[in-house]
Amino acid sequence: MSASNTPVDLSLIKKACESLRTVLPVTPLTLSLPFSELLGIEVYFKWESKFRTGSFKERGAAYFLSSLSSEERARGVCAASAGNHALALSYHASQMGIPCVIVMPTTAPLVKVENTQRTGAETILHGFNFDEALTHAEELSRSRGLTFVPAFDHPWTIAGQGSCGVEILEQLPEVDAVIVPVGGGGLISGIGTAMKALSPNTFVLGVQSAWALQAQERINRGDHSHNRLSAPSIADGIAVKRMGKLTGSIIEKVVDQLISVSEREIAHGVIQFLESERSLIEGAGGAGIAALTSKKLPSSCKKVVVIACGSNVDITMLARLIQGDLAEQGKIVRLRVSVADRPGSLHTITGMIAASGANILEVFHDRSFSSSPGMVEIMVLLELRGPEHGAQVIAALEGAGVTCRTVV
Amino acid sequence: MSASNTPVDLSLIKKACESLRTVLPVTPLTLSLPFSELLGIEVYFKWESKFRTGSFKERGAAYFLSSLSSEERARGVCAASAGNHALALSYHASQMGIPCVIVMPTTAPLVKVENTQRTGAETILHGFNFDEALTHAEELSRSRGLTFVPAFDHPWTIAGQGSCGVEILEQLPEVDAVIVPVGGGGLISGIGTAMKALSPNTFVLGVQSAWALQAQERINRGDHSHNRLSAPSIADGIAVKRMGKLTGSIIEKVVDQLISVSEREIAHGVIQFLESERSLIEGAGGAGIAALTSKKLPSSCKKVVVIACGSNVDITMLARLIQGDLAEQGKIVRLRVSVADRPGSLHTITGMIAASGANILEVFHDRSFSSSPGMVEIMVLLELRGPEHGAQVIAALEGAGVTCRTVV
Repeated sequence: MSASNTPVDLSLIKKACESLRTVLPVTPLTLSLPFSELLGIEVYFKWESKFRTGSFKERGAAYFLSSLSSEERARGVCAASAGNHALALSYHASQMGIPCVIVMPTTAPLVKVENTQRTGAETILHGFNFDEALTHAEELSRSRGLTFVPAFDHPWTIAGQGSCGVEILEQLPEVDAVIVPVGGGGLISGIGTAMKALSPNTFVLGVQSAWALQAQERINRGDHSHNRLSAPSIADGIAVKRMGKLTGSIIEKVVDQLISVSEREIAHGVIQFLESERSLIEGAGGAGIAALTSKKLPSSCKKVVVIACGSNVDITMLARLIQGDLAEQGKIVRLRVSVADRPGSLHTITGMIAASGANILEVFHDRSFSSSPGMVEIMVLLELRGPEHGAQVIAALEGAGVTCRTVV
Repeated sequence: MSASNTPVDLSLIKKACESLRTVLPVTPLTLSLPFSELLGIEVYFKWESKFRTGSFKERGAAYFLSSLSSEERARGVCAASAGNHALALSYHASQMGIPCVIVMPTTAPLVKVENTQRTGAETILHGFNFDEALTHAEELSRSRGLTFVPAFDHPWTIAGQGSCGVEILEQLPEVDAVIVPVGGGGLISGIGTAMKALSPNTFVLGVQSAWALQAQERINRGDHSHNRLSAPSIADGIAVKRMGKLTGSIIEKVVDQLISVSEREIAHGVIQFLESERSLIEGAGGAGIAALTSKKLPSSCKKVVVIACGSNVDITMLARLIQGDLAEQGKIVRLRVSVADRPGSLHTITGMIAASGANILEVFHDRSFSSSPGMVEIMVLLELRGPEHGAQVIAALEGAGVTCRTVV
């Protein structure tokens, strides 16, 4: 029986657990007081982000590598990825002394290329997008006799991720529900299979990103066009445009519910986690937080585990997420103010803003446009305590006869 | 013997350990692979940030409260603080059913006022700065018969913080050095006393902020003026303008070396911790990271513990720190570009920038100033891979005859 026909069942997952015991640490499972208080249930996080390369992908990659024959190990492995799979595979390949080739699209962020190279893997930049990198990696595997390591759609990978489910049940046997981010579906296939075998009443909730679902729909319609101007997903770890065949069929059997969350909800989830847990979570994990707070779980679920699946978020992106979230919460506001175009006008306005307790972050003058002759428009970016404070500042300005309005 | 004359020695610290055992969890001590690899030594973090209210202050506050007589508990306690001491004291007072009054300056951030109120403490806003709040809290304690709880300069507080040192020695008996942030000096007095009694060869390095030292010097010169335009410190937890009398005398005996770090080094420490440990650390902890990476320790120290003293950093501030640090590393650059004032000029420039792989974050037109007639100046804010990438972008623009220069 070839590896890709091995059935994914509890016995394969137990085999993976046994094999990983000496290679990987058990990741912590902790009760979150802030989220538990917020939601009135017991919320636990499974800290998959604590692995050396920052995500659960190490489970599948390490088990796949340890399942290879010594001949396959000697020849080496190959994968296409610009993310967590690349980091996990290249790290464990280097630990086991297995040659490793990673193909990344030429558009991959430099920091990910560098991090992968640092593990000692041969890193090849090829193709504009992931699909082109993938095709190249498959060709390369054939021509160089390397074993191609799928990121999710393979029994060994899925069984490796399933070890997370077994660990959760050892750490919290009475778990009522597990919330799992879904991209290619490897993690939820593994965890779901373990849950349904060992704790069939535990509710398994999968969370996809609406971004990925839209991309999948476009592809199902036969639309393979790339729009270079469309925004990438914040949750790159689950921005997968095609779910696996194997994972798809497993998910139908072991997942109780699949929901999707928007980019905005994901961003807010990342920030909420940062504020409450004082730790980084990547977009895919933020999707799990969004699912948790959207209260889509059956009300009977009182002990809920959310998989904190990874922490590899770029800090430049993080700064943008924070600012976007602050604007969303009315803690940053852009105000367009009309003032007389003469000395002292700006000083008067800034004095009123200071008196109202708001902090001016930026000021722009716009001399070309004005509400009426002799007036000039000023755009101020304000830091506030929230929407009510913003309303107070506007009321104070308008009370003094200054015309102003918020600009989104 | 009144409480404030109790000598701070190992026996008092052991008493504090015993008393805290049922009240506080043991905070984790973990090996940091990224920092260990960076520095070629074993670097450990002591996660004091994992306490419920996010800082080590719970040790001192909880031990102080548990040392009170039942009569004193019934009357209640009072403190002046806009930070971690307020959170720690009010939380443990509410856990023990002790009435608690916290005085904060009127300038305290709303989020800290709200967090303190949420514990059930009576929160009084009084005075423009900390000194005025402190005076009011002391008066209030006298007039209402409350026990005033000092943030650092008291034997019980110091002994409580000292329990951290005992824990470190239980978790890593062979520790060569401990790096401790120093504000009022309570934490280092406690840890240092424990170390010198139990492991006299462990090197105790204290880190102050240069900001606080300058403020202390001004006060020593008799200059008590407040400059409302001077920047607050990033490391508010150690921005203490007067070290304690008791802590000062203990520090002379138990600390091997005291160094200071700049605001910029502290900011970089916070970002380095976020990137490497994927967790938040507040400015005081960032000072510890800065001390670690500045290699001020004796070269014989191979196992070093850094106290991750707290995680209470405002995320608005965090976004600013990230952006400041990106600019510092040449990953964000402001470029002033001169272009002909006619249709298509901006399009040509943006095309050249896109081809160089840089991301345009913001564009400003400045029509009033120009290098020569018929030209207009454009300011672009660029996201780059680093200084070399920035040089490439400038070279590409200049190669095409475009005048540009970076603006700091």
